Amino acid sequence: MTQRLFSPKIEALIESLKALPGVGKKTAQRMAIQLLDKKQQAAAKLAKSITEALLTTRHCRECNMLCEAELCHICSSPRRDCMQLCVVENMLDMMAIESAAAYQGKYFILHGRISPLDGVGPNELQLPKLKTLIETREVSEIVMALSPSVEGETTVHFISDMLKSQNCKITRIGFGVPFGGELEYLDGQTLTHAFNARVNF
Amino acid sequence: MTQRLFSPKIEALIESLKALPGVGKKTAQRMAIQLLDKKQQAAAKLAKSITEALLTTRHCRECNMLCEAELCHICSSPRRDCMQLCVVENMLDMMAIESAAAYQGKYFILHGRISPLDGVGPNELQLPKLKTLIETREVSEIVMALSPSVEGETTVHFISDMLKSQNCKITRIGFGVPFGGELEYLDGQTLTHAFNARVNF
Repeated sequence: MTQRLFSPKIEALIESLKALPGVGKKTAQRMAIQLLDKKQQAAAKLAKSITEALLTTRHCRECNMLCEAELCHICSSPRRDCMQLCVVENMLDMMAIESAAAYQGKYFILHGRISPLDGVGPNELQLPKLKTLIETREVSEIVMALSPSVEGETTVHFISDMLKSQNCKITRIGFGVPFGGELEYLDGQTLTHAFNARVNF
Repeated sequence: MTQRLFSPKIEALIESLKALPGVGKKTAQRMAIQLLDKKQQAAAKLAKSITEALLTTRHCRECNMLCEAELCHICSSPRRDCMQLCVVENMLDMMAIESAAAYQGKYFILHGRISPLDGVGPNELQLPKLKTLIETREVSEIVMALSPSVEGETTVHFISDMLKSQNCKITRIGFGVPFGGELEYLDGQTLTHAFNARVNF
């Protein structure tokens, strides 16, 4: 149907909502109508939150996380271990690790991974900044926590090459069978990793 | 985890995004980070679209659709049949009918259905307005296009009672097997309707 179903401002809102991840035309229509029809207050609050967050947030000077201050709450916390630095691809990966409360050191967010096909080389990521950071401060361990994929592997290898002259241990999070995972449904690569990573019981 | 993962403005944005239908905490986090990190322009546009749509849209004086003018594009169109009025529950149902291009008359949007359990009686809906509309203008047919449910049935019966003194035909969209529907997966009520609605071949 090329026929216009909504008035221009509503169509504009639907178009804008489609920029949200995972939101297609139908969902955007439903969202727009709910916002304008039933949730005007929530809609006004949403517009205000977006504008305020856009105006106030920036990347943390050290770890590249989005925050309002110059340093994020992790980088500025005295309770975090400065000697450990965990390298992650993006903020969501960092959030997942934080939620698990499995790590007490600091982070460095690359905001991507090396992917020549997508035009992302080492300079598009924050790798020079990572190098400077390691060179100028005392870090005893760098934990690579990138998702296992061709691009992730490439990035991990590039970083460990880049930092091999530095006096710090480079480790990697363990790969294997996920907790609750059924062996029969796991792919061969995961099982191979799990076998290679076997430990004495 | 009670620990704060994001800075206050980002947390506020995540909270606001959760007002969108179908958006939970995880999706809202993903949306917030994408908007602030990768799609700042789209985010600014979204905030602007929401604000503009909130300021400019209102309900059409006749059919209750959301639009910017006093009359929506359907109510103000000279090409639509004024003698037919299709009663629907909400704007999304109307959009579905419009997309199918199956109907050339006008609409009346109730913005709900009678549901005593939810505290929605005839006065919470636009029923008095519908009555006035039918009394003051010439309408030859009222097509009830409400979803078949207990509340939908109640609403249809209430409206037909309310309008029975008026000189207009009240019809209802057909119920039966949906196009592409497999008989073996259909519920008994649908099949009963389909049998009752059988026609000569």
